[in-house]
Amino acid sequence: MEELQKQVIAFRDERNWKQFHNPKDVALSLSLEASELLENFQWKTSDEALTINKENIKDELADVVIYALLFADEAQIDLAKAVQQKIKKNALKYPVEKAKGNKSKYTEL
Amino acid sequence: MEELQKQVIAFRDERNWKQFHNPKDVALSLSLEASELLENFQWKTSDEALTINKENIKDELADVVIYALLFADEAQIDLAKAVQQKIKKNALKYPVEKAKGNKSKYTEL
Amino acid sequence: MEELQKQVIAFRDERNWKQFHNPKDVALSLSLEASELLENFQWKTSDEALTINKENIKDELADVVIYALLFADEAQIDLAKAVQQKIKKNALKYPVEKAKGNKSKYTEL
Amino acid sequence: MEELQKQVIAFRDERNWKQFHNPKDVALSLSLEASELLENFQWKTSDEALTINKENIKDELADVVIYALLFADEAQIDLAKAVQQKIKKNALKYPVEKAKGNKSKYTEL
Repeated sequence: MEELQKQVIAFRDERNWKQFHNPKDVALSLSLEASELLENFQWKTSDEALTINKENIKDELADVVIYALLFADEAQIDLAKAVQQKIKKNALKYPVEKAKGNKSKYTEL
Repeated sequence: MEELQKQVIAFRDERNWKQFHNPKDVALSLSLEASELLENFQWKTSDEALTINKENIKDELADVVIYALLFADEAQIDLAKAVQQKIKKNALKYPVEKAKGNKSKYTEL
Repeated sequence: MEELQKQVIAFRDERNWKQFHNPKDVALSLSLEASELLENFQWKTSDEALTINKENIKDELADVVIYALLFADEAQIDLAKAVQQKIKKNALKYPVEKAKGNKSKYTEL
Repeated sequence: MEELQKQVIAFRDERNWKQFHNPKDVALSLSLEASELLENFQWKTSDEALTINKENIKDELADVVIYALLFADEAQIDLAKAVQQKIKKNALKYPVEKAKGNKSKYTEL
């Protein structure tokens, strides 16, 4: 993940784009890319979407991750560490013995 | 990134949640988490948001990445490879000599 | 719709909130409310969601429309007229004889 | 609003599209259209966006309202009534004397 982040930052800096990238606008772009990923599933089942739109789905998912890496850099977040801490928090919210085979939200477990 | 993905998948499988995780619903959840990240910036500047909401911003960003890793697993996408291929595509769409210091979309460069 | 818009604007102006309501931030809020509506359907079928979350669904849908009315005011758009014009545009993109019983996008009809 | 909803429903029914329109997929489409509206403001100020993209902004806003009207029909919600009830709820959450000139969320007033 560090290696990918370096490539994404190099891409940004070669184009001198950091000046445009305040965290609010990067979070907005991340949200737009997540919608573009979801758009591939509009009026479709998962199987239909993956059969017809696989290449675009791959690209949009990559864009989501690219913006996540840029956002982490802008907001000075160690992304790998943040993910690991969040998995631990989620494990407390969703203990295996309560959540196993259960799709309820933690507030309803 | 592989290591993180293993942890995320282990979390899912311990809870026997794969049965609920079709790609469409995972993409939908990813989009919701991206909105929750963005919500931290509602009616705020980047600085205000990062001062007040830093901890929540970190958590929501992590959730976005967790869903991206789950989605990649469901849709059988090699995420690191997809990101690197997308960076290459973006480099063709935004050549340094045209895009440097310019925030226009590639269709307007 | 005009009557509803008057009520929404009166609500805003009694609180002296126009100063915060630039169109970009209102569009951002509209998008967040649309996500909160969608969140009611996360990991659920339509029927499950409407059975469990009907009251919240009603509220979030209303918030979407409230922000649409505010946005129209900020951006000086006649909303009823814009909707009627868009229905006409859509009718050209999706002629009855081609689109009947067909969920394809107009680019694929 | 009733008149607009009739037109939107007539448009749908002439194309025999009700069969595709379960509330979950309509809510998903509404959320996508809200993102497309917001996309007009990506990397732009409100003024820049409204100067350059006014026509598209109008269309995307109309699409949001069209999906809101369809959703209300599918989910059997009286939209005008829902909006008026929500304005009343909001008035309780944001009493004028506390909220005047204050952009804080109601939980922080």
